[in-house]
Amino acid sequence: MNNIKIGLLGLGTVGTGVYKLIGMRSDIMEKTIGAQIEVKRILVHNINKKREGIDPALLTDNWREIVEDEEIQIVVEVMGGMEPAKTVIMEALRAGKNVVSANKDLIAEEGRELLDTAQEEGRDFLFEAAVAGGIPIIRPLKQCLAGNDIDTVMGIVNGTTNYILTKMFEDGMDFEDALKKAQELGYAEADPTADIEGLDAARKVAIMASIAFHSRVVFSDVYTQGITKITARDIAYAKEFDSVIKLLGVAKNTEDGIEAGVYPMMLHKDHPLASVRDSFNAVFIHGDAVDDAMFYGRGAGEMPTASAVVGDVIDVARDLQHGCTGRISCTCYKELPVKAWGEVKNAFFIRMQVRNQPGVLAAIAKVFGEHKVSIARVVQEHTNPDAAELVIVTEKVKEKYMENALDKLKSMDSIYEISSVIREYV
Amino acid sequence: MNNIKIGLLGLGTVGTGVYKLIGMRSDIMEKTIGAQIEVKRILVHNINKKREGIDPALLTDNWREIVEDEEIQIVVEVMGGMEPAKTVIMEALRAGKNVVSANKDLIAEEGRELLDTAQEEGRDFLFEAAVAGGIPIIRPLKQCLAGNDIDTVMGIVNGTTNYILTKMFEDGMDFEDALKKAQELGYAEADPTADIEGLDAARKVAIMASIAFHSRVVFSDVYTQGITKITARDIAYAKEFDSVIKLLGVAKNTEDGIEAGVYPMMLHKDHPLASVRDSFNAVFIHGDAVDDAMFYGRGAGEMPTASAVVGDVIDVARDLQHGCTGRISCTCYKELPVKAWGEVKNAFFIRMQVRNQPGVLAAIAKVFGEHKVSIARVVQEHTNPDAAELVIVTEKVKEKYMENALDKLKSMDSIYEISSVIREYV
Repeated sequence: MNNIKIGLLGLGTVGTGVYKLIGMRSDIMEKTIGAQIEVKRILVHNINKKREGIDPALLTDNWREIVEDEEIQIVVEVMGGMEPAKTVIMEALRAGKNVVSANKDLIAEEGRELLDTAQEEGRDFLFEAAVAGGIPIIRPLKQCLAGNDIDTVMGIVNGTTNYILTKMFEDGMDFEDALKKAQELGYAEADPTADIEGLDAARKVAIMASIAFHSRVVFSDVYTQGITKITARDIAYAKEFDSVIKLLGVAKNTEDGIEAGVYPMMLHKDHPLASVRDSFNAVFIHGDAVDDAMFYGRGAGEMPTASAVVGDVIDVARDLQHGCTGRISCTCYKELPVKAWGEVKNAFFIRMQVRNQPGVLAAIAKVFGEHKVSIARVVQEHTNPDAAELVIVTEKVKEKYMENALDKLKSMDSIYEISSVIREYV
Repeated sequence: MNNIKIGLLGLGTVGTGVYKLIGMRSDIMEKTIGAQIEVKRILVHNINKKREGIDPALLTDNWREIVEDEEIQIVVEVMGGMEPAKTVIMEALRAGKNVVSANKDLIAEEGRELLDTAQEEGRDFLFEAAVAGGIPIIRPLKQCLAGNDIDTVMGIVNGTTNYILTKMFEDGMDFEDALKKAQELGYAEADPTADIEGLDAARKVAIMASIAFHSRVVFSDVYTQGITKITARDIAYAKEFDSVIKLLGVAKNTEDGIEAGVYPMMLHKDHPLASVRDSFNAVFIHGDAVDDAMFYGRGAGEMPTASAVVGDVIDVARDLQHGCTGRISCTCYKELPVKAWGEVKNAFFIRMQVRNQPGVLAAIAKVFGEHKVSIARVVQEHTNPDAAELVIVTEKVKEKYMENALDKLKSMDSIYEISSVIREYV
């Protein structure tokens, strides 16, 4: 029986999960692939650190020992970050190895070069784990849904923020407390910026949009806005509107270009994404043939991410067994423009504190009208004799017009504060 | 550029969708696969019938013209039914062709023989469309989640019944009216038996369980119970219990065998399957690495089903381009027993009309106790001076014990009627 050898780059949470899972599934692999799969070498920072269940003889702190090992056919990169990950992957591909990676940061920025190199070398470069952890999404997009013209990919692709928003929505927590609880549970890091500001989600959106629309979208193409400004008051209104607030990554392929952004959004409770709770992730797509579809599951964590990595490893092993590595390569054969964010149309929920006197609403409505913003709904609550809270929900309007309207409103004496501006899914 | 020729067996709803979609996607195929894909021949009953947009020269009523055509490399079977579909597929495989099928009836009963033949011939036999229409489920199970030991596959895999139950739940319709509406909309056939009695869902459960558990499960292994006895009263209780009623296909891989059944079930509203509405389908799985995952979308219809078929066609075309057809074959290498239904454990919701007098509840509780049934919850409502409606929710108990307990209850004078027996997901 063929014995396929793996070089594992990194032995953090995901790397440890991958190592364990490959061991746990050796019987299945032998029977479904007809080959044994064995981790031969593991790249770590410190080869002297004791690691339970890992033979120290496997460890190396020199990645060349993996890239130059002729027996190793699959390199699994779970070290993360840009460098040295990129250099090692490129060298591994150039040395004729197949690569499985979970590195969303790298793929969201340098995916094209990595995929092109894999294609030149006729090798597999798979990265199911880089988007939404254990949830199958790359392979469904590239294969199962390959017959579709996909116009929308939209998802909850960050578990930390979904956990925080769920706690705020269901348990009435405020943002700071929910974040603290997420940190206690290990869902959020000590520095939570990448999660709560939407940067992590934006990387995943870039990768998904590239695959779904057959055109490269990189991290810097994605507009991002985090969830730090969402308040209990906004959530109360969401409930009143039979909606939830979710941090969504949204990518659309429109006639005049690709739109890509990450931002909190009010979403009606009947939408399939609305019932995605806690730290779960889900990706919703719309294609011209399949109509709506959604993929739901664990977006992070040791074993869910290892599930995706090992699924890729098994697929590479099948390709090795059948002599067809490089079978699925880059599918970005279009060069579609990415729309300037100001040109993207959205509907908005705007909550503001205004002077409680006749004519204020009319003045505000006039500003909106002058900036091409149509009002869909107005809710006014008197908070004290002098002040009122005014909520305006708009029709879809270009982001740049809304920005101009908000600038104008901010300069008005009768408006004390614009408390929230949240996009609404319509 | 390579020109891959297809023989299409059947030109009903799905066949027409497949023909259209292959035409619509020719540009994508050329660019992502590097080959053209062309429908060369179409098998129909009546070659003289006018069909808009279809060149009559493509039509044949003799399947041998497709199977014996050396140019045809992929046969797409969308005729349905057992014969002649099986014979034609077998002959096509023997003639060295790859086959894509949407035929759940055939695969749920004869899948092993078809897959074994494909494997012997080194050809692809793909059938993503046979389970849950456009929703990717076969490929995720066989590839993306291949690193998992999957213990549960559970789903809403029949759109007709989900539509009916949604109308009953949300609009207060009774079963007959909801069925009529489903028929008017084309969701239900004139003879709705296969849908409403759970037979259609059972075929899909057999296929999914076989793949998820690596062991053959056939249609006759699947216990089935339909939705015809669900009443408005049951739905009112479901609402009271923060639950919904769904027709679920449930397959579990337990230590003492596989459990497979289709039946209506009360499901708490927080479960991801609970929010699957209208004619949508969804498949929920649990694996030891990935944890919970769910796949949601359109389970039927011309274009969603065509989406799955064309995804398979593109995959076969890739294998042809890389000389690796037969890359993924049958993965049922285990021979696990299927549990006798009486041995399966479930929790139950039991609604009955009883005499309103002291001691009746105690007598009923005694019967349950004697049959090893533990009671989790009791709700009693007085309907008139003499009668009461009693609802008992049980803990999990073997089906055979429950059956015996119900037989005994039916013989009691103080019980006028056992109105409903519905399983409850716990």
